[in-house]
Amino acid sequence: MKLMRIGPVGTERRVVRLNDREYVDVSDIATDFDEEFFRSNGLDRVRSEVAARTDRGLIETFAGERIGAPIARPHQVLCIGLNFRDHAEETGQAVPSEPIVFNKAPNTVVGPDDDVRIPRGATKTDWEVELGVVIGRRTSYLATPEHARSAIAGFVLVNDVSERAFQMERGGQWMKGKSAETFNPTGPWLATPDEISDVNALGMWLDVNGSRAQTGSTATMIFNPYFIVWYLSQFLVLEPGDLIDTGTPPGVGMGSNPPRFLQPGDVMTLGIDRLGEQRQRVVAPR
Amino acid sequence: MKLMRIGPVGTERRVVRLNDREYVDVSDIATDFDEEFFRSNGLDRVRSEVAARTDRGLIETFAGERIGAPIARPHQVLCIGLNFRDHAEETGQAVPSEPIVFNKAPNTVVGPDDDVRIPRGATKTDWEVELGVVIGRRTSYLATPEHARSAIAGFVLVNDVSERAFQMERGGQWMKGKSAETFNPTGPWLATPDEISDVNALGMWLDVNGSRAQTGSTATMIFNPYFIVWYLSQFLVLEPGDLIDTGTPPGVGMGSNPPRFLQPGDVMTLGIDRLGEQRQRVVAPR
Repeated sequence: MKLMRIGPVGTERRVVRLNDREYVDVSDIATDFDEEFFRSNGLDRVRSEVAARTDRGLIETFAGERIGAPIARPHQVLCIGLNFRDHAEETGQAVPSEPIVFNKAPNTVVGPDDDVRIPRGATKTDWEVELGVVIGRRTSYLATPEHARSAIAGFVLVNDVSERAFQMERGGQWMKGKSAETFNPTGPWLATPDEISDVNALGMWLDVNGSRAQTGSTATMIFNPYFIVWYLSQFLVLEPGDLIDTGTPPGVGMGSNPPRFLQPGDVMTLGIDRLGEQRQRVVAPR
Repeated sequence: MKLMRIGPVGTERRVVRLNDREYVDVSDIATDFDEEFFRSNGLDRVRSEVAARTDRGLIETFAGERIGAPIARPHQVLCIGLNFRDHAEETGQAVPSEPIVFNKAPNTVVGPDDDVRIPRGATKTDWEVELGVVIGRRTSYLATPEHARSAIAGFVLVNDVSERAFQMERGGQWMKGKSAETFNPTGPWLATPDEISDVNALGMWLDVNGSRAQTGSTATMIFNPYFIVWYLSQFLVLEPGDLIDTGTPPGVGMGSNPPRFLQPGDVMTLGIDRLGEQRQRVVAPR
């Protein structure tokens, strides 16, 4: 099942995508795809209702509307740093022995094709195609990574946009370069796990102005999504609807020779197998 | 005005504290002290209604109930690291040239007298009395620190509980040792700015088992609350109800000689002038 939110910012309808053109509207049984939805087994309710509505022909046609993030603003956005061996190497940092964890502000989550705005004073705004994991239930102290399977609501494409000067050159912690508004385009859809045959073998790519920048596969992750969810659950309580950005493959601007960064007018396009594609225009600071 | 939330977890009533014994219930006009409340000028509504209700004698008496955090779970909890010159020195770290910023998981926010639970595998759980700042409106790119005054809903006492081994010895970013459940006792009340004559001259203290551990004053902060809010607003968008823990004075367990850390059965008591007191029992891992 593929969940989407479509329509203007703040009033997105909740729908289930059937194919490129068709969907079933479930707004009436899902106030939002938010913490309460996932906590209360909303996925099960939607699944059975979509089957019934499809049988009755209650299918609508996608009409070129804006696509929102497929989840409401989450309780927290957690991120894993340097989770691809070759990306750690390209940025000149040591391969971590256990996951590096940092946060993005939850209000960075925007639609997959919304503009990405360069922050004021920024000089090194960069891209990161990533696999996002959405949590399906309150999760703490999982016994093993295998137990993480039942804690995951689904997977989603994200762009973990990063201002490297703010992240690396302004003292201490990375979140300072990760949390500007529009810095976490998410979507187009949330794919439930049954849509993904092997989450550890998904191709990933990102183009800047039509030229390939990043190419990778979740197969080269140091820590896979199940390990990450298990690991995080040892340190904090994951809430339903929480989003985890699981790290990026090689090809970021910071790792280019010479380094190159985003400018107003640039266009990022990116995708992950089975999770769709995004397209963002880069715009100047407010 | 002093806002409180009293009653069992999840069903706290919203009240305005008049004195140690008396309050006015405003639950009917404040669904919660949350993002929507602050965004929609809830403070102004409550202020005028409390005056009217006090005139009409609609005053209730505090009956020894549980006190909750005075704000609902915020969109984000931001923290400033090493913000007291003498605390930076006691932990052997350089005095920062600009604020160090990190996150706590928002679901760490609990009541001021709720138990603090040591996480599984923890060996260095520590205390930090801090001044908390609650944001009153959506805030981005403030022009000067002076402009931060109108962005602040009020001030609150917090205990920024920290697991030092998770924070410092498990790779990379601090949030890993800051985000365990119960790690941010908050309250007993949110004091609006008119309650505090000078936020830069508030005494702070914390006792462990009745012995003084921390003594300090907001006067020795490196970056004051107005500077901090202005600074954060250059990197991210603050939402109404967001909480900022502004850093701790000397006397944490990590800085003791020899270092000492919390054990089940320990009791922390702490306070800040005009912001009340907290008392937490430390309990064993789940």
